[in-house]
Amino acid sequence: SEGLWSFLDTVESNFRPLVVIELAKGTKEETIEWFTKRIMDKKANGGAQLLIKPLVTENGVENIYLVGASHLRLLLGAETVGLVKECSDNSMRTFTYSSRKTFKDFADDNHNFLTMAECQYIIKHELENLRAKDEKMIPGYPQAKLYPGKSIVRRLLTSGILVQIFPLHDREELKKLRHSWYGRVKVGYQPLDDIRCYFGETIALYFGFLEYFTFALIPMAVIGIPYYVFAWEDYDKYVMFATFNLLWSTVILEVWKRICAILTYRWGTLLMKRQFEEPRPGFHGVLGINPVTGREEPVYSSIKRQLRIYLVSLPFVCLCLYFSLYVMMIYFDLEQWALDYHKENESNFSSLMLYVPSIIYAVVIEVMNRIYRYAAEFLTSWENHRLESSYQNHLILKVLVFNFLNCFASLFYIAFVLFDMKLLRQSLATLLITSQILNQFAESLLPYWLQKRYNRRMKKRMCSQKTDMDLSLADQVNMEKEMGTYLGTFDDYLELFLQFGYVSLFSCVYPLAAVFAVLNNITEIYSDALKMCRVYKRPFAEPTANIGVWQLAFETMSVISVVTNCILIGMSPQVDALFPDSKMDLVLTVALVEHLLLAIKFIMAFVIPDKPRDIQMKLARLEFESLEALKQQVRAFQMQLHFPLIHHCLEVKQRAFNLFLCPLHTPMK
Amino acid sequence: SEGLWSFLDTVESNFRPLVVIELAKGTKEETIEWFTKRIMDKKANGGAQLLIKPLVTENGVENIYLVGASHLRLLLGAETVGLVKECSDNSMRTFTYSSRKTFKDFADDNHNFLTMAECQYIIKHELENLRAKDEKMIPGYPQAKLYPGKSIVRRLLTSGILVQIFPLHDREELKKLRHSWYGRVKVGYQPLDDIRCYFGETIALYFGFLEYFTFALIPMAVIGIPYYVFAWEDYDKYVMFATFNLLWSTVILEVWKRICAILTYRWGTLLMKRQFEEPRPGFHGVLGINPVTGREEPVYSSIKRQLRIYLVSLPFVCLCLYFSLYVMMIYFDLEQWALDYHKENESNFSSLMLYVPSIIYAVVIEVMNRIYRYAAEFLTSWENHRLESSYQNHLILKVLVFNFLNCFASLFYIAFVLFDMKLLRQSLATLLITSQILNQFAESLLPYWLQKRYNRRMKKRMCSQKTDMDLSLADQVNMEKEMGTYLGTFDDYLELFLQFGYVSLFSCVYPLAAVFAVLNNITEIYSDALKMCRVYKRPFAEPTANIGVWQLAFETMSVISVVTNCILIGMSPQVDALFPDSKMDLVLTVALVEHLLLAIKFIMAFVIPDKPRDIQMKLARLEFESLEALKQQVRAFQMQLHFPLIHHCLEVKQRAFNLFLCPLHTPMK
Repeated sequence: SEGLWSFLDTVESNFRPLVVIELAKGTKEETIEWFTKRIMDKKANGGAQLLIKPLVTENGVENIYLVGASHLRLLLGAETVGLVKECSDNSMRTFTYSSRKTFKDFADDNHNFLTMAECQYIIKHELENLRAKDEKMIPGYPQAKLYPGKSIVRRLLTSGILVQIFPLHDREELKKLRHSWYGRVKVGYQPLDDIRCYFGETIALYFGFLEYFTFALIPMAVIGIPYYVFAWEDYDKYVMFATFNLLWSTVILEVWKRICAILTYRWGTLLMKRQFEEPRPGFHGVLGINPVTGREEPVYSSIKRQLRIYLVSLPFVCLCLYFSLYVMMIYFDLEQWALDYHKENESNFSSLMLYVPSIIYAVVIEVMNRIYRYAAEFLTSWENHRLESSYQNHLILKVLVFNFLNCFASLFYIAFVLFDMKLLRQSLATLLITSQILNQFAESLLPYWLQKRYNRRMKKRMCSQKTDMDLSLADQVNMEKEMGTYLGTFDDYLELFLQFGYVSLFSCVYPLAAVFAVLNNITEIYSDALKMCRVYKRPFAEPTANIGVWQLAFETMSVISVVTNCILIGMSPQVDALFPDSKMDLVLTVALVEHLLLAIKFIMAFVIPDKPRDIQMKLARLEFESLEALKQQVRAFQMQLHFPLIHHCLEVKQRAFNLFLCPLHTPMK
Repeated sequence: SEGLWSFLDTVESNFRPLVVIELAKGTKEETIEWFTKRIMDKKANGGAQLLIKPLVTENGVENIYLVGASHLRLLLGAETVGLVKECSDNSMRTFTYSSRKTFKDFADDNHNFLTMAECQYIIKHELENLRAKDEKMIPGYPQAKLYPGKSIVRRLLTSGILVQIFPLHDREELKKLRHSWYGRVKVGYQPLDDIRCYFGETIALYFGFLEYFTFALIPMAVIGIPYYVFAWEDYDKYVMFATFNLLWSTVILEVWKRICAILTYRWGTLLMKRQFEEPRPGFHGVLGINPVTGREEPVYSSIKRQLRIYLVSLPFVCLCLYFSLYVMMIYFDLEQWALDYHKENESNFSSLMLYVPSIIYAVVIEVMNRIYRYAAEFLTSWENHRLESSYQNHLILKVLVFNFLNCFASLFYIAFVLFDMKLLRQSLATLLITSQILNQFAESLLPYWLQKRYNRRMKKRMCSQKTDMDLSLADQVNMEKEMGTYLGTFDDYLELFLQFGYVSLFSCVYPLAAVFAVLNNITEIYSDALKMCRVYKRPFAEPTANIGVWQLAFETMSVISVVTNCILIGMSPQVDALFPDSKMDLVLTVALVEHLLLAIKFIMAFVIPDKPRDIQMKLARLEFESLEALKQQVRAFQMQLHFPLIHHCLEVKQRAFNLFLCPLHTPMK
């Protein structure tokens, strides 16, 4: 048994903790034993074939487990999840274990071939795909039912036995990343490839978009500044600015698709095959047969879901929209009151009071948005969508519509009902700036401060003399498990979406909006980076090939902004003065210009290819190769199995070639 | 050698001629020998492994060859082209020879498993993929250069040695099809599945669309009739009709996608994988390396092509558009002249003369459309597109833009410049009816009459006493090779597209247009069927999953029609009367309604799923199965190759389970 020990020791020294599993306090011994056994069990026996170890701190075992995997296991997992990596000839290919030698940087002893984020993603995938076999329930918890094929981890999560699963930070790597990302004061691009290696593609793509969007806003901001500085109010200058804005916003959204393709091609996610989607954890229903997979799983009637959507969710959303409009009307009453007060008193205090209603309204909007967000999440989860993607789409739709109305309704009202351009400019500025400040504070600075205070207390409690780097693994895990959970890029994209609305919808009234947006986004990059690195738990990497539904949302916004800007220009007194005789001609001209601009937008979106030529070529080459490979396969198969006979009869025919060219029997003869 | 002969005889008796190859008169013996040898040669030697025989008539060998294939060869070919057939369990699956037993109606002796159209498609595919190996030129024709990988048939076609390749009609089947299609007077659906079996999916889908479109127009026609009969001119009735029309046209286009999915799923083409596209026959350039395939083939600089498109084609198209507008202005002069003439004379003749300019203009439009078509074909082919699909897209774009302007410019001018609703109605009616009559005549009746006369003369020349059915194969081939070639569904779809324009663009002015369209389409079905069955050579079947760019064209037309109809309604005196005080309010209301309608259209297009739920489920099941199969493969592979070692070490670990739950080394202790 000497050899056995030494063998375990070598495995031991190779164990690199990647993912942390926290079980509820007081979880039964029986359950833990079963769960860990299933995780370690052979793939052939339906296990995940991973390594798992309990974490022991000074307080003894605390129901926290560390999961890792051997290098070979991770490589096989990379094949299972369909990772795409770069080959030695610089092309991107789906990784397979048998072709591993052809990949760039692959060596049997190079354990950095897969990034840590990829390893963690593989482990998450394997854990989530650990499925019940013949267990009817979770051992020790008869109320937590299982059925064949049910994901064990998802059942453990929904029944509260499993508190959380999260990937561990790599303090060394994180420090390097922090330094290159926001550690030094410098002008330059973000280290997107490093971010991707550490946080995965979804988050890297968000930061890529944020950076791209900021750069794209710079021309608008540069053009906008002189309008403010010289107080340009000429008609033609405004028209030029608005036209530039409209075409520019189309161009940047189209060009983003191309840049996104370049990034995700390099990261391999553009070529990744979509995996089959399993039901989301919260999905429930009576056991039935899924018609697609033929497997036993909970089934929920689609009619019931439609009823819930159209009879409950839709009316609720409408009610919320009505309420939001009601609040808006109160704001206008307040605004009127403040104006009256200022007129009566004419003091410094009263002129300051003029800004108060806008600021209060901006705060109220932010609060309403956040409350509504919870309601929308509750409703969408109650709608019981089977797939995470469908859940996300319904949630995004609900939130987008409300946020759009909530943020922009007052501006639309001021612009197109009150026709008060001065008030519009003032409201726009207040809303934009207040929401930016609130967001930065609520999203990053406040959590950062709370986290920092907590960390300080934690450290004091543990042992005060150590620096960050000396922390033991156990301390690190304990610290990280208390950190907040990053809930995905939704809020970050939403913020950018609303900002894009402020910049584009009324751009010809307030050209300075782009300047504020640029300034905000520069600090946003830093505060979001801070949030990712210091405030939240490390999130699991999620491969993605594009920004999904947000592309559509931004494009819709840019279409709406064509309409609003055309109307605004048409309403401006300068343009009005151009058509002194006939208001009719003015309106018709504006309508014509609007339709032309919309047509140009659609033609531009159609003409600009979504992927750059070289990416198209690379994709075409891959497609061609896979078709060729298929053909070779078919050909080889045909040769082996069926052609001996045909070969024979063709040889016979070829020897009789001259005889063969004999006439067909024709009845004419 | 007795056995050899008898063996050949049995093969002989199985030979079913499927495709005819006509070589130029006087083609060198050497060339024919090489070509037939290549066609018959084994697949392993780079041949097509098909059967070929010369056709001998009373005049001896006439350089006409019949191509067939053994049943086994066709089944293997079906696998190569990726045909999708129905399985015994009613699911659609890609046919493979090894899984042939699982397919419905498959039996080794059932030679009808593949339809004749499918067999001919397979043979065409195999012939086109017969590629040069080490030949530098076509034997006997040193000027007809070849290079490795060049399609031999395409080179033979471009160098004029090969006159044509066409599939043979099956007289028995054709008679049955003719009978069920248009042979008896009946009300009912067309036998689309039979059409598909005989002519292939592209043509069947055209007839499916024509039928669907006719049915979809019936509600419009039914609603339109009372407007004409009772001369309704009320504002609200017009608005109702136009609104119905606009929403209806969106609905029918969305529903068509679903019906198209149902049809093509049943036919298997919805699931067919796209094949890699080879350069089109007319493509030329200097020999180079294709960056995608890495093969030697002609390469043509994309910049040169862009220059040709933007510096020659675009200006030419613009010139043609200008010319078309110029002709339109002449028409209006003529119209004015006829009106003056009628005012002066007031005779029966002069009132008849009122219609003459419209009729002349309609004829001129048709003539211009046809001439332009040739110019567009010449230009697009001169642009030297590498792919047939890109050639087609550029051709369709050129032709669509010109035809749209040519047909509708005068109507737009009358409606929005002259504001003459009466003239608009009259012009619309004249244009619509004239173009329908001209089309039916030029497309089907004239060719049918010519063909019939030719057939009669042919028969007389050959032997007058025989009926159609007694014709020998040689006579049949000789007759069919002289028939016209069906150039694809382009013209047929274009006709429907323009008709859709007449019906939808100005629907609120002339509700009767839908009635004429329905009547025309009913006769169109019959005349097109006649054309397919009696006038033209049988075309090769082309698998297709949708109507392609035409869906987009129809949708664009329906968007434009929202704009035109809203303006027309806004201009009507009845609506005008509703806003007696302010024309401004009228225009703003119209603009608002237009934007709302457009928004509803886009939301409807977004909400209505493109595929019915059951087709979605079936597709999802197939995707799931293929993913599962892949997983199984990976798993089996992992088991075989890599797991023995891991199994061992995991077993070791599991035996040491209790020992294994030992604490991690923690520095805290």
